[in-house]
Amino acid sequence: MEKITSTQNPVIRSLKALKDAKERAKTGLFLVEGEVMIREALKCGLMPRDALFENESPLMNALTKAGANVHLCSRGALEAAADTKTPQGSVCAFTMPRKTALPDNAMKIVALDAVQDPGNVGTIWRTADAAGFDAVIFGEGCADAYSPKVQRAAMGSGFRVPAVHMNLKETLPLYTLNGASLIVSALDGSDLYARAPIPNDKPMILVIGNEAKGISKEVQSLSNVRLKIPMRGGAESLNAAVAAGILMYELTK
Amino acid sequence: MEKITSTQNPVIRSLKALKDAKERAKTGLFLVEGEVMIREALKCGLMPRDALFENESPLMNALTKAGANVHLCSRGALEAAADTKTPQGSVCAFTMPRKTALPDNAMKIVALDAVQDPGNVGTIWRTADAAGFDAVIFGEGCADAYSPKVQRAAMGSGFRVPAVHMNLKETLPLYTLNGASLIVSALDGSDLYARAPIPNDKPMILVIGNEAKGISKEVQSLSNVRLKIPMRGGAESLNAAVAAGILMYELTK
Repeated sequence: MEKITSTQNPVIRSLKALKDAKERAKTGLFLVEGEVMIREALKCGLMPRDALFENESPLMNALTKAGANVHLCSRGALEAAADTKTPQGSVCAFTMPRKTALPDNAMKIVALDAVQDPGNVGTIWRTADAAGFDAVIFGEGCADAYSPKVQRAAMGSGFRVPAVHMNLKETLPLYTLNGASLIVSALDGSDLYARAPIPNDKPMILVIGNEAKGISKEVQSLSNVRLKIPMRGGAESLNAAVAAGILMYELTK
Repeated sequence: MEKITSTQNPVIRSLKALKDAKERAKTGLFLVEGEVMIREALKCGLMPRDALFENESPLMNALTKAGANVHLCSRGALEAAADTKTPQGSVCAFTMPRKTALPDNAMKIVALDAVQDPGNVGTIWRTADAAGFDAVIFGEGCADAYSPKVQRAAMGSGFRVPAVHMNLKETLPLYTLNGASLIVSALDGSDLYARAPIPNDKPMILVIGNEAKGISKEVQSLSNVRLKIPMRGGAESLNAAVAAGILMYELTK
């Protein structure tokens, strides 16, 4: 196998371009870094494309079998392609498993309403996986689900729990009309720990709002369950990912 | 009032130096940025020292009354002193309210065992405030409590909830001998939602561990309550600040 050493090599350039959200949208690909995450993506059934390895690895064979084009490359070429400053020894492009509708049997769903911080988005995705949620809805104005920062914070949960892209205002009413609970946190909501029971035979959609502005008025007005995490000390609010974690676990315990 | 314009001015240099943990330890000072946070620090009784303002503000008077040396300065001088790249129009040094013993009446305490990410440390501090905790113990190996990143993530909770610096191995046994519950999360722990009751007439100390290594063996061995947040999906663990939030709220609801 010929070793790629030039950062101008077309493979390096095409992988490097995936740092850009527009390029990801155009190609339908995103970048996964490091053997642990590449193995996890393969295990979750994601389709690999071009892969780069600094050194020979048994994973190269597994990727080739799964249909990838695997290349050896120099450290410099790897660093040019990767998003991290000091990348682990491998990167691989995978097809983004973007969906635009919820899985039929989804019962526990978290919806992001313009959550902008990539760390928060990835952390909420990871927590949704841990708490047994079936899908994460990405409304408009969220950090890009397949940006490297989001995927790093999601730590593999981005491959396991489907990301569903939809316009919240237009699609949430379809679910509430069918009996779904649409849950928002609101200052005038009921205390989370003294709430009325939430039906568990219909889907539950928990909305997490923007870090500064909270949940948009339109989505607030569609909600049928309004809850408040009690603020006992002097803090006025919680970090979005922490609030999401407390709500996801409390609502499904 | 003379306006400071040189980035070499001794006041600018002394404030700039507070970005460094050693300098903070030596001087006992840390930097607070922006009027909202400076007001909050004053309100919480922290002692102000040198303050810089780009433009005249009513807050300058309040700071002077509280004993601060207040200066007007140019944008360039402000940017040199501040930690953020595009600072708000003011910064002020305050005396760090470092403590080395718990408040006498502290009943709900979170202890950080080498939590290293400044964002996690600040977010846990903020959540501790919201959940009504009385103190945050900083064990060895934690991110510096008064670093600008920690304080930004704490959003003012760093002024309200005392930070107590102590060696966990040496001091935690003093509390458990007096009946405190020392709570750790552990893979072999009881399900958080099916736990035995935890006495609420004695202090509760919840330990949060290092992001990669978890809680140290020494601290694990001192614990008397071992709990596990259930992992229902494919994720192996939670972000440290999210886990802390779920535990703090669940244990005190």
